[in-house]
This record gives sequence, C-alpha cells and structure tokens, in this order.
Amino acid sequence: MENFNFYSPTEFVFGKETENECGRLVRKYGGTKVLVHYGSGSAVKSGLLGRVTQSLEKENIPYVTLGGVQPNPRDTKVYEGIELCRSENVDFILSVGGGSCIDSSKAISIGVPYSGDFWDFYTDKAHITNALPIGTVLTIAAAGSEGSGSSVITKEEGMLKRDAGSDLIRPKFSVLNPQLTQTLPAYQTGCGATDIMAHVFERYFTNTKEVEVTDRLCEALLLTMIKETPRVIADPDNYEARANIMWAGTVAHNDIVGVGRSQDWNSHGIEHELSGLYDCAHGAGLAVVMPSWMEYVYRHDVMRFAKAAVRVWGCQMNFDAPEETALEGIRCFRRFLSSIGMPVNFEQLGAKEEDIPVLVEKFGLGDGKTGGFVALSSSDVAAILKIAVTAN
Amino acid sequence: MENFNFYSPTEFVFGKETENECGRLVRKYGGTKVLVHYGSGSAVKSGLLGRVTQSLEKENIPYVTLGGVQPNPRDTKVYEGIELCRSENVDFILSVGGGSCIDSSKAISIGVPYSGDFWDFYTDKAHITNALPIGTVLTIAAAGSEGSGSSVITKEEGMLKRDAGSDLIRPKFSVLNPQLTQTLPAYQTGCGATDIMAHVFERYFTNTKEVEVTDRLCEALLLTMIKETPRVIADPDNYEARANIMWAGTVAHNDIVGVGRSQDWNSHGIEHELSGLYDCAHGAGLAVVMPSWMEYVYRHDVMRFAKAAVRVWGCQMNFDAPEETALEGIRCFRRFLSSIGMPVNFEQLGAKEEDIPVLVEKFGLGDGKTGGFVALSSSDVAAILKIAVTAN
Repeated sequence: MENFNFYSPTEFVFGKETENECGRLVRKYGGTKVLVHYGSGSAVKSGLLGRVTQSLEKENIPYVTLGGVQPNPRDTKVYEGIELCRSENVDFILSVGGGSCIDSSKAISIGVPYSGDFWDFYTDKAHITNALPIGTVLTIAAAGSEGSGSSVITKEEGMLKRDAGSDLIRPKFSVLNPQLTQTLPAYQTGCGATDIMAHVFERYFTNTKEVEVTDRLCEALLLTMIKETPRVIADPDNYEARANIMWAGTVAHNDIVGVGRSQDWNSHGIEHELSGLYDCAHGAGLAVVMPSWMEYVYRHDVMRFAKAAVRVWGCQMNFDAPEETALEGIRCFRRFLSSIGMPVNFEQLGAKEEDIPVLVEKFGLGDGKTGGFVALSSSDVAAILKIAVTAN
Repeated sequence: MENFNFYSPTEFVFGKETENECGRLVRKYGGTKVLVHYGSGSAVKSGLLGRVTQSLEKENIPYVTLGGVQPNPRDTKVYEGIELCRSENVDFILSVGGGSCIDSSKAISIGVPYSGDFWDFYTDKAHITNALPIGTVLTIAAAGSEGSGSSVITKEEGMLKRDAGSDLIRPKFSVLNPQLTQTLPAYQTGCGATDIMAHVFERYFTNTKEVEVTDRLCEALLLTMIKETPRVIADPDNYEARANIMWAGTVAHNDIVGVGRSQDWNSHGIEHELSGLYDCAHGAGLAVVMPSWMEYVYRHDVMRFAKAAVRVWGCQMNFDAPEETALEGIRCFRRFLSSIGMPVNFEQLGAKEEDIPVLVEKFGLGDGKTGGFVALSSSDVAAILKIAVTAN
C-alpha cells in the first residue's frame, strides 16, 4: 500500500426530508448571505427550491438565487455566478442539484476570491488557496461531487472539459435525501449508476500490490450497485434501493475506497471528450468507453480482471484459462449496462466513427502517454474508441 | 435505511515514517503548547517518542509529556493529565499509543475546559460542549479511537468501565504508520484484530431492513481481516498485511460502514465487565463473549447469520436448513479466533464461572433490557456468560 492522506470533513445529513435542515446547517457553517445555485427548473417545479429557501428564511438568512446550470456545466454560468456573488457580498454557496450544479458551485467558490480568470485553476495556471464555503442538496446519485474535492467544467469556446481539485472545495455539508432522486427518469438514473460504478472501477484497476482492504471495499460498492440499480429502474419510487445507491455514490468518490493505491482515470478522460463533443450524458459516455477500455487493457493484469469477474460478477473461475474469466467479467459489465438502458456503442450514443481523430486530438496526448493502470498513447485511445464503435 | 448524520473530519496521514509529520500537523491545527500523552515505555524505548518530540521541536512548538497510560485506561491518569494541561496552559493534546492512550487523551481534552468532574461525561450527568483539540499517533490497530468520537474510561474505585461520545472529541488528525505496529507481540495483534472484527459485527447484526451497501462494506472489512490477520501472526514484520489491517481498523469504527442502521453493542457492554473485573485485554474478552452472544441470539434472524456465514466465512448455504449454515458461521468465527491465539472460553481468559452473578450485577440492567439487535435482560446476559464458560 502506498502512503496517503485521507481527509473528508464534509458533514453528510442523510434521509427523508433532510432538505429542511439547510438553514440550520448554513448557520452552523457560518453563512450569512447565501447564493442558492440550482440546475434545472424541476427543482422549482417539484417544490424543492421552495423548501430550501423557506428553511433559510426560518433562520433569517438572506439569499439570492441563480438557476439554469446545464449538464456538462459551462464556464459562462460560472462567470455569471462569480459576478453575482461579488455584487451581493455572498459568503456561502448552497448548491441544489446534481454533479453539474455542484461542480459549477465549486468553480464559483474559487473564482470569487481570485483576482484572475477562474479557468486558470482548470488549466493548472493557478493553485487553489482560497474558496467560499459551500453546502449541497443532492438531487442525483452519480458524480460524487457532494463528498469530493474535485470539479469538472466545460469551456464553451472549443467545448474543452477540464477538472480542478483541492480539499478546500470539499462541501462543508451535503444533504442527501433519496426521495429527491425518485422523480429522475430511468435514463438519468442509469447514467448516474454507471458513473458511480465507473468511479469504483477507475480505483479498482491498479498496479499497487497488496491492497486487499480497498479491493474488498470497492467490490462491496459494485455488488451493491448490481443489486440495487435494476430495482430502481423497475420501480423508480423504491426509497430503500435509492438510499443504498445514494450512499454508495458518495462513498465511491470521497476516496475512502481508493486511498493508498494507483488509480487509472483514462476512461473518464476519454469520456470527457465524448460528452464535450456530443454533449451526451457523462454516464452514457462511460458506458460506451469503459468496457471497451477494459477489453483493450485486460491483458496487462489478467488475474485482477479475473478477480473482478469472480468477486463482483459472480463468474466461475476458469483455472485453466483465467483470461476467459477476465473476458467473461467484461461481458457481464456490458450486458449489465445494456440491461439498465445504457448505450454501449457509438451508434447507441449518437457518436460517429469518423470523429475518432478529432476526439483523440482533443484528448491532447500528442506524443505523450497517460493513465495510472496502463499508460495509453494517442493510438491506444484511438484503438479503444474503435472497439467502442461496434461493441455489443 | 434510517436517517443519519455522518461526520468524520479527521485528517488521516497514513504510511511509512509519517510520525515525522506531527509537528507540521499540530501547527496546521493551531496547537501552540502540547501535551504529548503516551502509554507504555515501549514508545520511549523504540525511539518513537523521540521522533515525535523532535518533529515538534523542528516547528518550535513547546510541549510537556505524560506517560504511563495503562490498558483499560484509568480515571486517575485522566485527573493527572487535566491538572498538567491546566498548569502548563496546554492547548493541544498529542496522543501517542493505542486506543487506551487515545481514549485517555479524549477524557483529558473534555476535562480541561470543564469546571466539574470529567467523570460526569461518562455517567451522562453532563453533555460535552467543549474540548481541547487532539491529534494521535496510533501504535495498535484495534480500537478505532483514532477516527471515532468515543472514549472508554475505567473508574478505579469499583473498576467501572463507562463510555462518552461526541463529534467534538474526534481527532483533528491521526498519523497511521503500520511500521509502528510491527513490534507488537502476537497476542496483542490478535486482540486488536478481534476488536476490529467485533466493531464490524456489532454494526452488522441489525434489525434495519434494506441496508445492502453497509452490509457489503461490513463484509468487505471482515473478509480483509480474515485474510490479513493470520499473515501478521505468522510474520509480524509483514508491512503490507499490517497496512491493510490498520486501514480496516479505522474504517471499521469511524462509522462509515454502520450509518443508517440499528447496531447492537451488547457484546462490547458485556466484555467491559470482564475487562473491568479481570483487567484482561478488551479483544480477548470479546473473543470469549461475542461468539457466545451469537449462539444465544442467532434465532432472532437466522437468515442474517446465514448471510454472514456464506458471504464472510465462505460456507455453503444449506437451503434446506439455513439454521445449520448460521451455526456453521459462528463455529467458523470461533475457530478463527482460536487460530489467531485468542481465548474463547472462561478458563482460557482467566475468568471464573462463580463470578457470573457479579458480572451481571455490574452490567447494571436491573429489571431493564438493552441492545439494538436483541434486547437482553440480566438473565440473558447470565445465559450468554454461561455459554462462554465452556465454549470451544
């Protein structure tokens, strides 16, 4: 196991009707003027936004609101939020939505106290040293941003999707009410589940030896998702299954199951180019990329892929031909993704084979390589996307 | 799943030679005058204490030291620590040792700012509202106190063992260096492993339905302990196995695997009377009590015990007689404990059957009942201890 730091100071307030705690929590963490930042109109229509602002009013905490964050959140909305916070002297951001909304709030939180362009943090031109405190009310179990120290933003000019990270942007609190996810359409539910599983797999495929505890914890989360996801697809109102998925989504990405081991993250990187170009859902892009990545790299560590097949997918170990078991596990993953309504190839996603050179170009490796499990070159990335074209 | 709050703000600094970070960490969390509180002389002899104080000196942070915390830490040492902190104007406690040392430090941290007797917090006469910040350097993987908000202290007069808890006594940071545990004798290593497994089982046996994610996470930790513990018993210098156990021990007790579900804790309660009376190691007492408790209560939920047998111990499910599978799992647990050198009955522990009435009396139920999985009366506790007399 490698040396590591683990720090997850977020207070998670989990369960039914917990959005009514927002006022108390903002007060506890020192907010005196709040930006309530939300995504879609559904937060308004469902009454959620009303309950959140009511809870602030109960505590006599003034606020301004800013809605309209899009999936694959844009820099334009971030600039708007920064301006608003400055002009209104906001000292706390309350993010009501999914990962896109929270990531956008994090970008605003580091942009407000920074004299330069917030995009500097996403291009490694500046290092995060200050941020407004933020809290979240999560409406989609997926990105794990409610418990993480990272943020992904898309620059509209050129549709560049880039990330930034720091412990300073971990939320002070996150309200997790599984009821809020019950109205999600099946497709978005499936995308969220895929994202959660991908967060675990990015950590699971490692070159670090002797990491049984995090291996087992990763497998625990995957087994949970395999059990619970089909239940919520079949029965969107299943609170218990929603609750299990929601906690799994948070634990999957606050890194408690990923510390002390190398992680890969190439599937996420490649997917960012797909959703950057096609504006597709991140989870849908991952469903297309990740099994194809697995097919391309599994020979690097056949026994690790066989372990996933046996422990996660319940395959029988083929002791004479472990490679067969490894491949069977990957097939199980793709079949599972199809069964929960996810696309698994370019056509189903709405992507085009002729765009592969553009995607590879935007990925920006040049002559370099990247990846924590298998270092990929541009031609490797092209080969993985080629597999994804016709995968089934 | 039940509603819950989860808050674990401790910064964990994990890996080789991390004790040298102490000075930097104390500075980061605002300490300007430190009490270095340690347990046995082995921290001095091994050079650990020297490295810790050197790291404080490097940062020009003054300190005083207080050693001699005993296993099953006593109120007398707590009073001594409170006096010392007050007279030396200490504003940060650095605890170098195992769970006993850390629990003692936590008691001091709440005693210093309190005008009454610190024991009030352990008898529910007072509620924790203030505490000095503490940091820890862990030397035994066992109690999980390095990441928890609880403390157990024994009052020497009457040997009463009681606990107190609050988020305010969660450590600001905990240094986890598995190398420091390599010198532990096999018996203490086994006691620590038993304590870790018991922390998980106390959470696993629940009446809350539909908690797959925490079930699976609990099982992940148990599977890790079953793999790694025999390796460190056979090879004390195995850093990798020590590292897996150390992280499992922390995750087992910061409650991330226990949230949203009822928990039991009767085995711990009953054990506290054993170690209170005989001053035996807590883990050894648990090895005697917990399987006996399981035998007594398994009929309350045969399928949950069968699940543990199958998923944790790898038993084959007996679909015609699940009770057989449940019992086989309990037998596996006791065999495992014996194999790592733990006592499993009264004689092996040094306890006496004729003391059972005293133990039950000290447990203090009177005509009441307690327990989150099965509510036990005094006669139930006596029956469990009776099983433990001759268990094997």
